Amino acid sequence: MRLRGKKGIRGPLDSLSRIVVLNPQQYRGKWREFFGNDRPIHVELGMGKGGFISEMSRRHKDINFIGVDMYDELIRRALEKAREAHKEEGQSGDPSNLALVLMNIERIEDMFAENELERIYLNFSDPWPKKRHAKRRLTHPRFLKKYLGLLNSSGEIHLKTDSPLFFEFSLNAFACFGLQLHNISLDLHRDGNETGLVMTEYEKKFVEQGKNIYRCEVIVGEEALARIREKNQKQWNL
Amino acid sequence: MRLRGKKGIRGPLDSLSRIVVLNPQQYRGKWREFFGNDRPIHVELGMGKGGFISEMSRRHKDINFIGVDMYDELIRRALEKAREAHKEEGQSGDPSNLALVLMNIERIEDMFAENELERIYLNFSDPWPKKRHAKRRLTHPRFLKKYLGLLNSSGEIHLKTDSPLFFEFSLNAFACFGLQLHNISLDLHRDGNETGLVMTEYEKKFVEQGKNIYRCEVIVGEEALARIREKNQKQWNL
Repeated sequence: MRLRGKKGIRGPLDSLSRIVVLNPQQYRGKWREFFGNDRPIHVELGMGKGGFISEMSRRHKDINFIGVDMYDELIRRALEKAREAHKEEGQSGDPSNLALVLMNIERIEDMFAENELERIYLNFSDPWPKKRHAKRRLTHPRFLKKYLGLLNSSGEIHLKTDSPLFFEFSLNAFACFGLQLHNISLDLHRDGNETGLVMTEYEKKFVEQGKNIYRCEVIVGEEALARIREKNQKQWNL
Repeated sequence: MRLRGKKGIRGPLDSLSRIVVLNPQQYRGKWREFFGNDRPIHVELGMGKGGFISEMSRRHKDINFIGVDMYDELIRRALEKAREAHKEEGQSGDPSNLALVLMNIERIEDMFAENELERIYLNFSDPWPKKRHAKRRLTHPRFLKKYLGLLNSSGEIHLKTDSPLFFEFSLNAFACFGLQLHNISLDLHRDGNETGLVMTEYEKKFVEQGKNIYRCEVIVGEEALARIREKNQKQWNL
Protein backbone atom coordinates (compact mmCIF):
# COMPACT_ATOMS: atom_id res chain seq x y z
CA MET A 1 0.00 0.00 0.00
CA ARG A 2 1.10 3.54 -0.70
CA LEU A 3 0.80 5.69 2.39
CA ARG A 4 2.02 9.07 1.29
CA GLY A 5 3.00 11.47 4.04
CA LYS A 6 0.64 9.79 6.49
CA LYS A 7 2.89 8.27 9.12
CA GLY A 8 0.17 6.89 11.41
CA ILE A 9 -0.16 7.14 15.15
CA ARG A 10 2.82 5.59 16.89
CA GLY A 11 2.18 3.81 20.14
CA PRO A 12 2.53 0.46 21.90
CA LEU A 13 1.42 -2.22 19.46
CA ASP A 14 2.80 -5.17 21.34
CA SER A 15 -0.05 -5.38 23.82
CA LEU A 16 -2.78 -5.52 21.14
CA SER A 17 -2.78 -9.19 20.21
CA ARG A 18 -0.59 -12.24 20.00
CA ILE A 19 -1.04 -12.17 16.21
CA VAL A 20 0.76 -8.81 16.02
CA VAL A 21 4.46 -9.55 15.61
CA LEU A 22 7.01 -6.80 16.12
CA ASN A 23 10.15 -8.91 16.16
CA PRO A 24 9.63 -11.32 13.27
CA GLN A 25 13.36 -12.19 13.23
CA GLN A 26 12.77 -14.42 16.23
CA TYR A 27 10.45 -16.64 14.16
CA ARG A 28 12.84 -17.04 11.21
CA GLY A 29 12.71 -20.75 10.39
CA LYS A 30 10.18 -21.23 13.20
CA TRP A 31 6.91 -19.93 11.81
CA ARG A 32 5.49 -23.44 12.12
CA GLU A 33 5.95 -23.09 15.86
CA PHE A 34 4.24 -19.70 15.83
CA PHE A 35 1.18 -21.15 14.09
CA GLY A 36 1.40 -24.48 15.89
CA ASN A 37 1.03 -26.50 12.68
CA ASP A 38 2.70 -27.45 9.37
CA ARG A 39 0.29 -25.72 7.02
CA PRO A 40 1.65 -23.75 4.05
CA ILE A 41 2.53 -20.10 4.67
CA HIS A 42 1.31 -17.35 2.34
CA VAL A 43 2.75 -13.87 2.82
CA GLU A 44 1.43 -10.54 1.57
CA LEU A 45 4.24 -8.01 1.19
CA GLY A 46 2.69 -4.59 1.76
CA MET A 47 -0.70 -5.58 3.14
CA GLY A 48 -1.92 -1.99 3.56
CA LYS A 49 -5.11 -1.86 5.59
CA GLY A 50 -5.29 -5.65 5.61
CA GLY A 51 -8.57 -6.21 3.78
CA PHE A 52 -7.06 -8.84 1.47
CA ILE A 53 -5.13 -10.83 4.04
CA SER A 54 -8.06 -10.79 6.50
CA GLU A 55 -10.49 -12.11 3.93
CA MET A 56 -8.01 -14.70 2.69
CA SER A 57 -7.39 -15.96 6.23
CA ARG A 58 -11.15 -16.20 6.75
CA ARG A 59 -11.69 -18.14 3.49
CA HIS A 60 -8.71 -20.48 3.69
CA LYS A 61 -8.36 -22.01 7.15
CA ASP A 62 -5.89 -24.56 5.83
CA ILE A 63 -3.32 -21.86 5.01
CA ASN A 64 -1.34 -19.68 7.42
CA PHE A 65 -1.23 -16.06 6.33
CA ILE A 66 1.30 -13.38 7.20
CA GLY A 67 0.64 -9.75 6.35
CA VAL A 68 3.70 -7.49 6.34
CA ASP A 69 3.81 -3.72 6.42
CA MET A 70 6.05 -1.07 7.90
CA TYR A 71 3.60 1.34 9.53
CA ASP A 72 2.11 0.90 13.00
CA GLU A 73 -1.20 2.36 11.91
CA LEU A 74 -1.61 -0.23 9.16
CA ILE A 75 -1.01 -3.05 11.62
CA ARG A 76 -3.79 -1.60 13.83
CA ARG A 77 -6.22 -1.30 10.96
CA ALA A 78 -5.40 -4.78 9.69
CA LEU A 79 -6.02 -6.19 13.16
CA GLU A 80 -9.44 -4.51 13.24
CA LYS A 81 -10.28 -5.92 9.80
CA ALA A 82 -9.14 -9.39 10.80
CA ARG A 83 -11.25 -9.30 13.97
CA GLU A 84 -14.31 -8.14 12.00
CA ALA A 85 -13.88 -10.89 9.41
CA HIS A 86 -13.39 -13.40 12.17
CA LYS A 87 -16.47 -12.23 14.08
CA GLU A 88 -18.62 -12.70 10.97
CA GLU A 89 -17.61 -16.34 11.21
CA GLY A 90 -19.00 -16.41 14.76
CA GLN A 91 -15.59 -17.14 16.26
CA SER A 92 -14.11 -15.50 19.32
CA GLY A 93 -10.48 -14.49 19.84
CA ASP A 94 -8.08 -13.53 17.04
CA PRO A 95 -7.68 -15.70 13.94
CA SER A 96 -5.21 -18.52 14.58
CA ASN A 97 -4.04 -18.67 10.94
CA LEU A 98 -2.94 -15.04 10.67
CA ALA A 99 0.06 -12.96 11.72
CA LEU A 100 0.43 -9.22 11.22
CA VAL A 101 4.06 -8.24 11.03
CA LEU A 102 5.65 -4.81 11.36
CA MET A 103 8.75 -4.88 9.21
CA ASN A 104 10.55 -3.30 6.30
CA ILE A 105 10.53 -5.70 3.35
CA GLU A 106 14.13 -4.72 2.62
CA ARG A 107 15.11 -7.21 5.32
CA ILE A 108 12.74 -10.03 4.36
CA GLU A 109 15.58 -12.57 4.51
CA ASP A 110 15.92 -11.88 8.26
CA MET A 111 12.29 -12.80 8.74
CA PHE A 112 11.99 -16.05 6.79
CA ALA A 113 14.32 -18.99 6.27
CA GLU A 114 15.00 -20.78 2.99
CA ASN A 115 11.97 -22.70 1.64
CA GLU A 116 9.77 -21.42 4.47
CA LEU A 117 7.12 -19.84 2.21
CA GLU A 118 4.67 -21.28 -0.30
CA ARG A 119 3.32 -18.07 -1.75
CA ILE A 120 4.11 -14.36 -1.89
CA TYR A 121 1.37 -11.88 -2.74
CA LEU A 122 2.32 -8.49 -4.15
CA ASN A 123 -0.87 -6.44 -4.30
CA PHE A 124 -0.73 -2.89 -5.62
CA SER A 125 2.85 -2.37 -4.55
CA ASP A 126 4.18 1.16 -4.83
CA PRO A 127 5.15 1.47 -8.55
CA TRP A 128 7.95 3.98 -7.81
CA PRO A 129 7.45 5.44 -11.30
CA LYS A 130 10.67 7.46 -11.42
CA LYS A 131 13.51 5.56 -13.06
CA ARG A 132 15.96 6.49 -10.32
CA HIS A 133 13.67 4.79 -7.79
CA ALA A 134 13.42 1.52 -9.76
CA LYS A 135 15.51 -0.27 -7.14
CA ARG A 136 12.72 0.24 -4.61
CA ARG A 137 10.12 -1.61 -6.70
CA LEU A 138 9.23 -4.88 -4.98
CA THR A 139 9.79 -6.83 -8.22
CA HIS A 140 13.28 -5.45 -8.79
CA PRO A 141 15.70 -8.33 -9.45
CA ARG A 142 17.40 -7.63 -6.11
CA PHE A 143 14.10 -8.44 -4.36
CA LEU A 144 13.25 -11.33 -6.69
CA LYS A 145 16.56 -12.96 -5.81
CA LYS A 146 15.53 -12.90 -2.15
CA TYR A 147 12.01 -14.23 -2.81
CA LEU A 148 13.30 -17.14 -4.89
CA GLY A 149 15.40 -18.31 -1.96
CA LEU A 150 12.49 -18.20 0.47
CA LEU A 151 9.90 -20.04 -1.63
CA ASN A 152 9.51 -23.82 -1.36
CA SER A 153 8.93 -26.43 -4.07
CA SER A 154 5.27 -25.37 -4.38
CA GLY A 155 6.32 -21.71 -4.39
CA GLU A 156 4.49 -19.06 -6.41
CA ILE A 157 4.35 -15.26 -6.55
CA HIS A 158 0.97 -13.67 -7.29
CA LEU A 159 1.01 -10.08 -8.42
CA LYS A 160 -1.77 -7.52 -8.93
CA THR A 161 -1.33 -3.87 -9.85
CA ASP A 162 -3.09 -0.93 -11.46
CA SER A 163 0.19 0.45 -12.83
CA PRO A 164 1.08 -0.57 -16.41
CA LEU A 165 4.58 0.74 -15.79
CA PHE A 166 5.08 -1.44 -12.72
CA PHE A 167 3.52 -4.42 -14.49
CA GLU A 168 5.77 -4.00 -17.51
CA PHE A 169 8.80 -3.68 -15.25
CA SER A 170 7.75 -6.78 -13.32
CA LEU A 171 7.17 -8.91 -16.43
CA ASN A 172 10.64 -7.99 -17.68
CA ALA A 173 12.17 -8.74 -14.29
CA PHE A 174 10.46 -12.17 -14.20
CA ALA A 175 11.67 -12.79 -17.77
CA CYS A 176 15.24 -11.93 -16.73
CA PHE A 177 15.14 -14.83 -14.30
CA GLY A 178 13.56 -17.08 -16.94
CA LEU A 179 10.59 -17.57 -14.62
CA GLN A 180 7.46 -19.41 -15.72
CA LEU A 181 4.41 -17.14 -15.90
CA HIS A 182 0.79 -18.23 -15.70
CA ASN A 183 -2.64 -16.59 -15.93
CA ILE A 184 -1.36 -13.26 -17.20
CA SER A 185 -4.15 -10.68 -17.35
CA LEU A 186 -4.02 -7.12 -18.70
CA ASP A 187 -7.58 -6.44 -17.54
CA LEU A 188 -8.54 -8.66 -14.65
CA HIS A 189 -12.13 -7.49 -14.43
CA ARG A 190 -12.86 -7.85 -18.13
CA ASP A 191 -15.74 -10.30 -18.58
CA GLY A 192 -14.58 -13.83 -18.15
CA ASN A 193 -11.20 -13.10 -16.56
CA GLU A 194 -12.11 -12.75 -12.89
CA THR A 195 -12.53 -15.97 -11.00
CA GLY A 196 -13.57 -15.27 -7.43
CA LEU A 197 -10.31 -13.65 -6.35
CA VAL A 198 -10.32 -11.52 -3.20
CA MET A 199 -10.17 -7.80 -4.00
CA THR A 200 -8.05 -5.31 -2.06
CA GLU A 201 -9.25 -1.88 -0.92
CA TYR A 202 -7.27 -0.23 -3.73
CA GLU A 203 -8.65 -2.61 -6.28
CA LYS A 204 -12.29 -1.87 -5.43
CA LYS A 205 -11.62 1.85 -5.81
CA PHE A 206 -9.74 1.44 -9.10
CA VAL A 207 -12.38 -0.84 -10.58
CA GLU A 208 -15.09 1.71 -9.70
CA GLN A 209 -13.01 4.30 -11.56
CA GLY A 210 -12.90 1.99 -14.58
CA LYS A 211 -9.14 1.44 -14.32
CA ASN A 212 -7.48 -1.73 -15.59
CA ILE A 213 -6.11 -4.22 -13.11
CA TYR A 214 -3.07 -6.23 -14.28
CA ARG A 215 -2.30 -9.61 -12.77
CA CYS A 216 -0.01 -12.59 -13.17
CA GLU A 217 1.21 -15.65 -11.34
CA VAL A 218 4.86 -16.61 -11.28
CA ILE A 219 5.48 -20.33 -10.85
CA VAL A 220 8.72 -20.79 -8.92
CA GLY A 221 8.89 -24.15 -7.12
CA GLU A 222 9.77 -27.37 -8.95
CA GLU A 223 6.57 -29.19 -7.99
CA ALA A 224 4.43 -26.19 -8.92
CA LEU A 225 6.25 -26.01 -12.26
CA ALA A 226 5.66 -29.69 -12.97
CA ARG A 227 1.93 -29.27 -12.26
CA ILE A 228 1.59 -26.24 -14.53
CA ARG A 229 3.60 -27.81 -17.35
CA GLU A 230 1.49 -30.93 -17.28
CA LYS A 231 -1.66 -28.81 -17.31
CA ASN A 232 -0.42 -26.75 -20.27
CA GLN A 233 0.61 -29.82 -22.20
CA LYS A 234 -2.79 -31.40 -21.74
CA GLN A 235 -4.69 -28.21 -22.51
CA TRP A 236 -2.82 -27.46 -25.73
CA ASN A 237 -1.79 -30.95 -26.75
CA LEU A 238 1.88 -29.85 -26.85
CA MET B 1 -3.19 -6.77 -41.53
CA ARG B 2 -6.93 -6.84 -41.20
CA LEU B 3 -8.62 -6.46 -44.57
CA ARG B 4 -12.30 -6.70 -43.79
CA GLY B 5 -14.59 -7.40 -46.72
CA LYS B 6 -12.10 -5.85 -49.15
CA LYS B 7 -10.96 -8.72 -51.31
CA GLY B 8 -8.68 -6.75 -53.62
CA ILE B 9 -8.51 -6.84 -57.38
CA ARG B 10 -7.64 -10.31 -58.63
CA GLY B 11 -5.43 -10.53 -61.67
CA PRO B 12 -2.17 -11.95 -62.97
CA LEU B 13 0.48 -11.23 -60.35
CA ASP B 14 3.12 -13.57 -61.70
CA SER B 15 4.34 -11.22 -64.40
CA LEU B 16 4.94 -8.28 -62.02
CA SER B 17 8.37 -9.10 -60.64
CA ARG B 18 10.69 -11.96 -59.78
CA ILE B 19 10.35 -10.99 -56.12
CA VAL B 20 6.64 -11.84 -56.18
CA VAL B 21 6.31 -15.52 -55.31
CA LEU B 22 3.03 -17.31 -55.92
CA ASN B 23 4.22 -20.87 -55.37
CA PRO B 24 6.38 -20.61 -52.25
CA GLN B 25 6.20 -24.39 -51.73
CA GLN B 26 8.78 -24.79 -54.46
CA TYR B 27 11.33 -22.88 -52.36
CA ARG B 28 10.78 -24.88 -49.17
CA GLY B 29 14.28 -25.60 -47.87
CA LYS B 30 15.72 -23.67 -50.86
CA TRP B 31 15.22 -20.02 -49.97
CA ARG B 32 19.00 -19.61 -49.97
CA GLU B 33 18.89 -20.45 -53.65
CA PHE B 34 16.11 -17.94 -54.24
CA PHE B 35 18.16 -15.16 -52.65
CA GLY B 36 21.46 -16.46 -53.97
CA ASN B 37 23.20 -16.21 -50.58
CA ASP B 38 23.32 -17.60 -47.01
CA ARG B 39 22.08 -14.53 -45.17
CA PRO B 40 19.54 -14.94 -42.35
CA ILE B 41 15.88 -14.93 -43.35
CA HIS B 42 13.33 -12.76 -41.53
CA VAL B 43 9.66 -13.30 -42.31
CA GLU B 44 6.72 -11.01 -41.65
CA LEU B 45 3.50 -13.00 -41.31
CA GLY B 46 0.69 -10.72 -42.46
CA MET B 47 2.69 -7.90 -44.03
CA GLY B 48 -0.38 -5.88 -45.03
CA LYS B 49 0.57 -3.05 -47.39
CA GLY B 50 4.22 -3.87 -46.93
CA GLY B 51 5.48 -0.63 -45.37
CA PHE B 52 7.37 -2.42 -42.62
CA ILE B 53 9.01 -5.13 -44.71
CA SER B 54 10.00 -2.64 -47.44
CA GLU B 55 11.65 -0.31 -44.98
CA MET B 56 13.35 -3.20 -43.16
CA SER B 57 14.74 -4.57 -46.43
CA ARG B 58 16.03 -1.10 -47.29
CA ARG B 59 17.72 -0.66 -43.89
CA HIS B 60 19.18 -4.13 -43.48
CA LYS B 61 20.88 -5.33 -46.66
CA ASP B 62 22.54 -8.17 -44.75
CA ILE B 63 19.17 -9.84 -44.06
CA ASN B 64 16.78 -11.48 -46.51
CA PHE B 65 13.17 -10.51 -45.89
CA ILE B 66 10.03 -12.36 -46.83
CA GLY B 67 6.63 -10.69 -46.53
CA VAL B 68 3.65 -13.03 -46.51
CA ASP B 69 0.00 -12.18 -47.06
CA MET B 70 -2.99 -13.85 -48.62
CA TYR B 71 -4.49 -11.10 -50.79
CA ASP B 72 -3.32 -10.24 -54.31
CA GLU B 73 -3.95 -6.56 -53.74
CA LEU B 74 -1.62 -6.47 -50.75
CA ILE B 75 1.17 -8.07 -52.75
CA ARG B 76 0.74 -5.36 -55.40
CA ARG B 77 0.84 -2.55 -52.86
CA ALA B 78 3.83 -4.06 -51.07
CA LEU B 79 5.68 -4.28 -54.38
CA GLU B 80 5.00 -0.60 -55.01
CA LYS B 81 6.25 0.29 -51.53
CA ALA B 82 9.36 -1.81 -51.97
CA ARG B 83 10.15 -0.19 -55.31
CA GLU B 84 9.69 3.30 -53.83
CA ALA B 85 11.94 2.51 -50.86
CA HIS B 86 14.48 1.03 -53.23
CA LYS B 87 14.38 4.04 -55.57
CA GLU B 88 15.12 6.37 -52.66
CA GLU B 89 18.34 4.44 -52.32
CA GLY B 90 19.12 5.30 -55.95
CA GLN B 91 19.08 1.65 -57.01
CA SER B 92 17.39 0.25 -60.09
CA GLY B 93 15.49 -3.02 -60.35
CA ASP B 94 13.64 -4.71 -57.48
CA PRO B 95 15.33 -5.25 -54.09
CA SER B 96 17.42 -8.42 -54.14
CA ASN B 97 16.89 -9.11 -50.39
CA LEU B 98 13.09 -9.19 -50.47
CA ALA B 99 10.40 -11.67 -51.48
CA LEU B 100 6.65 -10.99 -51.42
CA VAL B 101 4.72 -14.19 -51.00
CA LEU B 102 1.04 -14.87 -51.62
CA MET B 103 0.07 -17.58 -49.17
CA ASN B 104 -2.22 -18.52 -46.33
CA ILE B 105 -0.20 -18.72 -43.10
CA GLU B 106 -2.18 -21.81 -42.14
CA ARG B 107 0.19 -23.73 -44.41
CA ILE B 108 3.44 -22.08 -43.31
CA GLU B 109 5.11 -25.46 -42.85
CA ASP B 110 4.72 -26.11 -46.60
CA MET B 111 6.63 -22.94 -47.34
CA PHE B 112 9.64 -23.23 -45.02
CA ALA B 113 11.78 -26.14 -43.89
CA GLU B 114 12.99 -26.82 -40.35
CA ASN B 115 15.51 -24.23 -39.08
CA GLU B 116 15.17 -22.17 -42.25
CA LEU B 117 14.16 -18.94 -40.49
CA GLU B 118 15.94 -16.63 -38.09
CA ARG B 119 13.09 -14.33 -37.21
CA ILE B 120 9.32 -14.11 -37.47
CA TYR B 121 7.59 -10.74 -37.23
CA LEU B 122 3.96 -10.58 -36.18
CA ASN B 123 2.84 -6.99 -36.63
CA PHE B 124 -0.73 -6.03 -35.76
CA SER B 125 -2.09 -9.47 -36.54
CA ASP B 126 -5.85 -9.80 -36.57
CA PRO B 127 -6.78 -10.15 -32.87
CA TRP B 128 -9.87 -12.28 -33.64
CA PRO B 129 -11.47 -10.98 -30.44
CA LYS B 130 -14.30 -13.52 -30.24
CA LYS B 131 -13.40 -16.51 -28.11
CA ARG B 132 -14.69 -18.99 -30.67
CA HIS B 133 -12.18 -17.55 -33.18
CA ALA B 134 -9.19 -17.89 -30.82
CA LYS B 135 -7.78 -20.70 -32.97
CA ARG B 136 -7.27 -18.24 -35.82
CA ARG B 137 -4.99 -15.95 -33.78
CA LEU B 138 -1.45 -16.17 -35.14
CA THR B 139 -0.06 -16.78 -31.64
CA HIS B 140 -2.39 -19.68 -30.89
CA PRO B 141 -0.36 -22.66 -29.64
CA ARG B 142 -1.16 -24.55 -32.84
CA PHE B 143 0.71 -21.83 -34.80
CA LEU B 144 3.47 -21.44 -32.20
CA LYS B 145 4.21 -25.15 -32.51
CA LYS B 146 4.79 -24.63 -36.24
CA TYR B 147 6.95 -21.52 -35.78
CA LEU B 148 9.19 -23.22 -33.22
CA GLY B 149 10.02 -25.92 -35.74
CA LEU B 150 10.94 -23.42 -38.45
CA LEU B 151 13.21 -21.14 -36.40
CA ASN B 152 16.96 -21.77 -36.22
CA SER B 153 19.35 -21.54 -33.26
CA SER B 154 19.29 -17.71 -33.45
CA GLY B 155 15.51 -17.77 -33.82
CA GLU B 156 13.26 -15.08 -32.37
CA ILE B 157 9.65 -13.96 -32.73
CA HIS B 158 8.97 -10.21 -32.56
CA LEU B 159 5.40 -9.18 -31.90
CA LYS B 160 3.66 -5.80 -32.01
CA THR B 161 -0.04 -5.15 -31.54
CA ASP B 162 -2.53 -2.51 -30.50
CA SER B 163 -4.88 -5.10 -29.00
CA PRO B 164 -4.49 -5.75 -25.25
CA LEU B 165 -6.64 -8.84 -25.68
CA PHE B 166 -4.38 -10.27 -28.37
CA PHE B 167 -1.27 -9.32 -26.40
CA GLU B 168 -2.59 -10.96 -23.25
CA PHE B 169 -3.49 -14.09 -25.22
CA SER B 170 -0.06 -14.14 -26.83
CA LEU B 171 1.83 -13.72 -23.54
CA ASN B 172 -0.11 -16.64 -22.08
CA ALA B 173 0.53 -18.75 -25.17
CA PHE B 174 4.28 -18.01 -24.98
CA ALA B 175 4.19 -18.85 -21.26
CA CYS B 176 2.50 -22.19 -22.04
CA PHE B 177 5.56 -23.16 -24.07
CA GLY B 178 7.88 -21.87 -21.32
CA LEU B 179 9.38 -19.45 -23.84
CA GLN B 180 11.87 -16.78 -22.84
CA LEU B 181 10.50 -13.26 -23.27
CA HIS B 182 12.55 -10.10 -23.68
CA ASN B 183 11.89 -6.37 -24.01
CA ILE B 184 8.23 -6.57 -23.07
CA SER B 185 6.51 -3.21 -23.54
CA LEU B 186 2.94 -2.25 -22.65
CA ASP B 187 3.36 1.19 -24.24
CA LEU B 188 6.04 1.16 -26.90
CA HIS B 189 5.90 4.86 -27.62
CA ARG B 190 6.09 5.95 -24.00
CA ASP B 191 9.16 8.15 -23.53
CA GLY B 192 12.26 6.06 -23.36
CA ASN B 193 10.82 2.81 -24.68
CA GLU B 194 11.10 3.28 -28.44
CA THR B 195 14.48 2.61 -29.95
CA GLY B 196 14.43 3.31 -33.66
CA LEU B 197 12.11 0.46 -34.62
CA VAL B 198 10.37 0.61 -37.99
CA MET B 199 6.70 1.53 -37.67
CA THR B 200 3.91 -0.12 -39.69
CA GLU B 201 1.06 1.75 -41.39
CA TYR B 202 -1.32 0.65 -38.64
CA GLU B 203 1.08 1.69 -35.94
CA LYS B 204 1.43 5.26 -37.24
CA LYS B 205 -2.35 5.61 -37.28
CA PHE B 206 -2.77 4.15 -33.79
CA VAL B 207 -0.02 6.30 -32.31
CA GLU B 208 -1.66 9.42 -33.79
CA GLN B 209 -4.88 8.34 -32.07
CA GLY B 210 -2.99 8.05 -28.79
CA LYS B 211 -3.46 4.26 -28.58
CA ASN B 212 -0.99 2.04 -26.75
CA ILE B 213 1.26 -0.24 -28.74
CA TYR B 214 2.26 -3.51 -27.04
CA ARG B 215 5.43 -5.32 -28.00
CA CYS B 216 7.62 -8.23 -27.00
CA GLU B 217 10.40 -10.41 -28.28
CA VAL B 218 10.35 -14.18 -27.84
CA ILE B 219 13.77 -15.78 -27.72
CA VAL B 220 13.53 -19.24 -29.23
CA GLY B 221 16.87 -20.51 -30.56
CA GLU B 222 19.54 -21.94 -28.25
CA GLU B 223 22.24 -19.47 -29.27
CA ALA B 224 19.86 -16.53 -28.96
CA LEU B 225 18.86 -17.80 -25.50
CA ALA B 226 22.47 -18.08 -24.38
CA ARG B 227 23.15 -14.50 -25.50
CA ILE B 228 20.11 -13.09 -23.69
CA ARG B 229 20.78 -15.05 -20.51
CA GLU B 230 24.36 -13.84 -20.38
CA LYS B 231 23.18 -10.27 -20.94
CA ASN B 232 20.57 -10.55 -18.16
CA GLN B 233 23.05 -12.08 -15.75
CA LYS B 234 25.52 -9.28 -16.32
CA GLN B 235 22.92 -6.54 -16.16
CA TRP B 236 21.37 -7.72 -12.90
CA ASN B 237 24.31 -9.48 -11.37
CA LEU B 238 22.27 -12.71 -11.05
